Amino acid sequence: MSLLSGVPKLVNVGVASFGEAASAAGAEVVDLDWRPIEGGDPKLAWLLASLAGDGGHADAPGTRIDRANAQAIERVLAAKPVLVDIALQAREVWPDLDAKILLHAGAPLPWRKMCGPMQGAAIGALLYEGWAKSPEEAEAQLARGDIRFESCHDRGAVGPMAGIISASMPLFVVRNEARGNLAYTNMSEGIGRVLRFGANGPDVIERLKWIEKTLAPTLKAAVAAQPGGINLKSIQAQALLMGDEVHSRNTAASSLFYRAVAGPLMKSGLERRPIAETLDFIDANWQFFLNLSMASAKATMDAAEGVAGSSIVTAMARNGVTVAIRVAGLGRRWFEAPADQPIGLYFPGFKAEDANPDLGDSAITETAGFGGFSLAASPALVQLVGGTPAEARAKCIEMYEITCAKNPTHSIPTLDFAGAPTGIDIRKVVDTGIRPVITTGLAHRQAGVGQVGVGIVRAPMACFTAALVALAAEMGVA
Amino acid sequence: MSLLSGVPKLVNVGVASFGEAASAAGAEVVDLDWRPIEGGDPKLAWLLASLAGDGGHADAPGTRIDRANAQAIERVLAAKPVLVDIALQAREVWPDLDAKILLHAGAPLPWRKMCGPMQGAAIGALLYEGWAKSPEEAEAQLARGDIRFESCHDRGAVGPMAGIISASMPLFVVRNEARGNLAYTNMSEGIGRVLRFGANGPDVIERLKWIEKTLAPTLKAAVAAQPGGINLKSIQAQALLMGDEVHSRNTAASSLFYRAVAGPLMKSGLERRPIAETLDFIDANWQFFLNLSMASAKATMDAAEGVAGSSIVTAMARNGVTVAIRVAGLGRRWFEAPADQPIGLYFPGFKAEDANPDLGDSAITETAGFGGFSLAASPALVQLVGGTPAEARAKCIEMYEITCAKNPTHSIPTLDFAGAPTGIDIRKVVDTGIRPVITTGLAHRQAGVGQVGVGIVRAPMACFTAALVALAAEMGVA
Repeated sequence: MSLLSGVPKLVNVGVASFGEAASAAGAEVVDLDWRPIEGGDPKLAWLLASLAGDGGHADAPGTRIDRANAQAIERVLAAKPVLVDIALQAREVWPDLDAKILLHAGAPLPWRKMCGPMQGAAIGALLYEGWAKSPEEAEAQLARGDIRFESCHDRGAVGPMAGIISASMPLFVVRNEARGNLAYTNMSEGIGRVLRFGANGPDVIERLKWIEKTLAPTLKAAVAAQPGGINLKSIQAQALLMGDEVHSRNTAASSLFYRAVAGPLMKSGLERRPIAETLDFIDANWQFFLNLSMASAKATMDAAEGVAGSSIVTAMARNGVTVAIRVAGLGRRWFEAPADQPIGLYFPGFKAEDANPDLGDSAITETAGFGGFSLAASPALVQLVGGTPAEARAKCIEMYEITCAKNPTHSIPTLDFAGAPTGIDIRKVVDTGIRPVITTGLAHRQAGVGQVGVGIVRAPMACFTAALVALAAEMGVA
Repeated sequence: MSLLSGVPKLVNVGVASFGEAASAAGAEVVDLDWRPIEGGDPKLAWLLASLAGDGGHADAPGTRIDRANAQAIERVLAAKPVLVDIALQAREVWPDLDAKILLHAGAPLPWRKMCGPMQGAAIGALLYEGWAKSPEEAEAQLARGDIRFESCHDRGAVGPMAGIISASMPLFVVRNEARGNLAYTNMSEGIGRVLRFGANGPDVIERLKWIEKTLAPTLKAAVAAQPGGINLKSIQAQALLMGDEVHSRNTAASSLFYRAVAGPLMKSGLERRPIAETLDFIDANWQFFLNLSMASAKATMDAAEGVAGSSIVTAMARNGVTVAIRVAGLGRRWFEAPADQPIGLYFPGFKAEDANPDLGDSAITETAGFGGFSLAASPALVQLVGGTPAEARAKCIEMYEITCAKNPTHSIPTLDFAGAPTGIDIRKVVDTGIRPVITTGLAHRQAGVGQVGVGIVRAPMACFTAALVALAAEMGVA
């Protein structure tokens, strides 16, 4: 934690907040007045026992939760996320972004509490939008409070790493064809010195302009050429058989997406130059599919939002300061705890001390059963982040302990094609003490630098204990 | 064997052929006058002991073989197979094919001994070349002996399944940049009713014409646009990390090849229609890369050909009647034995009795460490052909017992990234009784039908015992 410049006061929602559901939706600090179960807290143990499923009578809280979870999981497994369109600019979807609103990853937090890479990305967004002429001017505006911030998730969106989305950025539009709900994300800029990792130099801004002017309209034509759009669930399922976990490795998924757009583009009326530039850009970026994988997972998990009584996690998100989760039966409230430091492999010239704590909305993929939950599907990623294929399998098997279902569409070859562990049950996390495994990119802690490595991290237990306490209150258990 | 229409007399080369190296290169029958070691043959046991390596004095036959194998393996591991060109028609490379010569898979054999699918493919080739106007006319010419047959391997070529190559068919030209040797193969027609599986209807011939007129010139332009050509070794190495064993599964490799040609084609001066057709064709064929994988393996293993005293297998090939092998220290002699019946999964409507015995030059991939030797890299294929990922790993581990090296470029993720077992030593095969594992397509036994499934088979032991006896003679051991 000492690595953070300007350590913020951290949010921990606990029993003290039973009556304060409204305030828990924001970033305000709530004191924690009990210990997690691993510390032997008798109250938490009693809540867990009260909410336990399997064998209680029909009206028992645990039984009601089980029924709600079955419904939530049914919606998750039935989801059919499809890339249906590209909004050429985010303002097409949200006109109010022009009132100097920026979206960011994770739970809401104000400018002064943001980590270095998120601040760097925000500065870059102001330069990109032309709201400021220099980084200094941008920073002054931000410090003055001229810019309003909102969480991507509150707009049905997700953004990798800093997750900054501004009015002119194009968006992928993903629809869950099973329920009609939409999810949005921005477009991958590639690896290294990029906005989402906090870089904001002229090269970064120029690339964002190219994405807006060339990549987005080209891909929009490719999507429009395919009746029904591009089936993202199918690409994710195939990619799991091809060495991706579709979070930190998207080599196969990006190839499959490339194939899905190249043919239609060739038959389109577009000029050849933008097509060639678009294909070259995707070809050079093995993480191109990440944003699509995230929006696919978001559209999938949002299907479970609002199922009363469900203890299934619908989002895990990191703003670089806290990790926050949402739970199906608890609406859009965030349950937050301080972010951990990922363990991983650093690019040449960087070391662990350079890395920001865990950052980005991309843990939505784990929420849907990918990433760390499907780590055994991606031995090549294991090689990159450290560890052995056997350890990756062990991590996957551990994740079955805290989830409700095996997704029959998304199977993990090295586990004899078992379905990916899907649907984190906060009760199981607290009960077993097993924290969700997340694969992640590593951002430099300072604004303006960019990506420094790739790693693995776990979501903090306090998110889950806090959510459990809130769910108990919701179910009338105290 | 009873499934064959017209069971041929089978070739078994043994001690009786010690002085008959010349005749062993052809398809003539040679009687076998000893039993394999598993039958307890004392002479074979003595030969094995005489040729054993590890610890003999410097001039001992086994030590000389070890030295030769080290040299042969060094050449195999150093090979750098690159797609450097496309010959628009095979006659550019071999003008004499116009004198009604057809190349075929496996060791040489005459028309009357050929299996159904090979006969079907030969009939199709005559129709395609315009040498005959109807299947009946083609069959009459073939029965009269108007057509000369040669083995693909004898032209430095490989062909999947029936492996028929005729004068007008375009060829991929692969060069091993480490030594300059060339290998050739024809182009994939897709799956199902295709010439290589013995189909020869009008749709098959029309597709071959399209390959000649559209696919070949388009891909030639794509290759020409890339200085240095397309690195096939790199594609194979990446594909092993993406769930392919680059014999019976080439899903990832075909995707990577698609990406390697789409961008350059978009920037080429070619019209858009042939580019779109070419990309759609590759997109629809997850085995498109197979032929390239085979030619890559052929260029790799030919590098070891002629290393005196080496017991490394440089080719395994099946003509649908026999399985035949070549050994580095024994030049171009074939050592043959009756082909086994593969065990596998059948397409709807077909059953085991429909399948021809093991067929095609594609076992060159196993010879180079892919296919069955890298089966653990491809759990998705295991799912298709039957068996579990654990069984696939066990098969791979078994293959280390009969090979000389782990290829550091081609690593198998699920075996903790061990290099693929490479360089079959005939001494180890005979000594351990472990026969090479081959993944394979299954052809219908009758001419004209096509592919009926996918399976796994092992090369027959008698090839290896026969080669061992010949090597002993070559080394002066008797």
